[in-house]
Amino acid sequence: MTATTTKNTTAQFLTAEQLLNHWQGHRNLTRRIIEAFPEKELFEFSVAAMRPFAKMAVELISMGGPGLKGIVDQQTEAYSEEAFNPKTKEELLKKWDEETETINHYFIQISEEHFQENFNLFGQYEFPVYQNILYFVDNEIHHRGQGYVYLRALGIDPPFFWERF
Amino acid sequence: MTATTTKNTTAQFLTAEQLLNHWQGHRNLTRRIIEAFPEKELFEFSVAAMRPFAKMAVELISMGGPGLKGIVDQQTEAYSEEAFNPKTKEELLKKWDEETETINHYFIQISEEHFQENFNLFGQYEFPVYQNILYFVDNEIHHRGQGYVYLRALGIDPPFFWERF
Repeated sequence: MTATTTKNTTAQFLTAEQLLNHWQGHRNLTRRIIEAFPEKELFEFSVAAMRPFAKMAVELISMGGPGLKGIVDQQTEAYSEEAFNPKTKEELLKKWDEETETINHYFIQISEEHFQENFNLFGQYEFPVYQNILYFVDNEIHHRGQGYVYLRALGIDPPFFWERF
Repeated sequence: MTATTTKNTTAQFLTAEQLLNHWQGHRNLTRRIIEAFPEKELFEFSVAAMRPFAKMAVELISMGGPGLKGIVDQQTEAYSEEAFNPKTKEELLKKWDEETETINHYFIQISEEHFQENFNLFGQYEFPVYQNILYFVDNEIHHRGQGYVYLRALGIDPPFFWERF
């Protein structure tokens, strides 16, 4: 020991499994936010002329699973929300649950070295893989926070932010 | 190689330094959201009877730096927002920048083993340290997403979510 503080620069912050559990916990909370919206308001209501929450959920569905598949298969297909156009909450939730499995399936195939390699996500975003994945999680928290405002504006108490499962 | 997919369970997802940079990138974006509010609206405006964004920023300031200090010093003092009661945007931003240094100072002292140890954050939230820290980041993204709605409702275009520095 010297008087100098040892920096933790290269210390592991968390494992792949811990990040996956963390992400799926967030996804479970987002699922409950989708459920909390009345059917009509999910697809039509918004604040400040922003997108309704169903549109945001379709963005999240179009990003996480397809993004991970691209990372694992080394394919840089463009991002698209056009493949999925749900008309009901049930349809949206069914797809959400399918993507839970898709994410689990692809995520566990990414190695420690791969997380650090650059990948051109959707042929457009050139970053290390761990940053691509953090973007999926952060973008979900960001839009879900907006969904919380929509629910409050509808007079609905949203689930607690810290309850994940 | 066998036909079974190798799971990445214990693989490192990212290092401590990468997480710190990621967090400080988010904090820089939040700083720009604070700046984007007009002085009066920062302290008074909200949507759906929620808190104005200045109150949310005080929550973030009261959590990150003090929480890390508690983790490093093994102190479980209760969470409090009462120590800081800014009246101007300038005062809020000055404290924000001070906390940037506080976070850097304490974060680098947390070892790989320590990230995995349980800590009773603010004497109330008993979780592994890495989860306590992810909570600071996630909670910031969550409330900042709400700040984006406030800005949109004020007719102000917020900074891009993906621009961090």
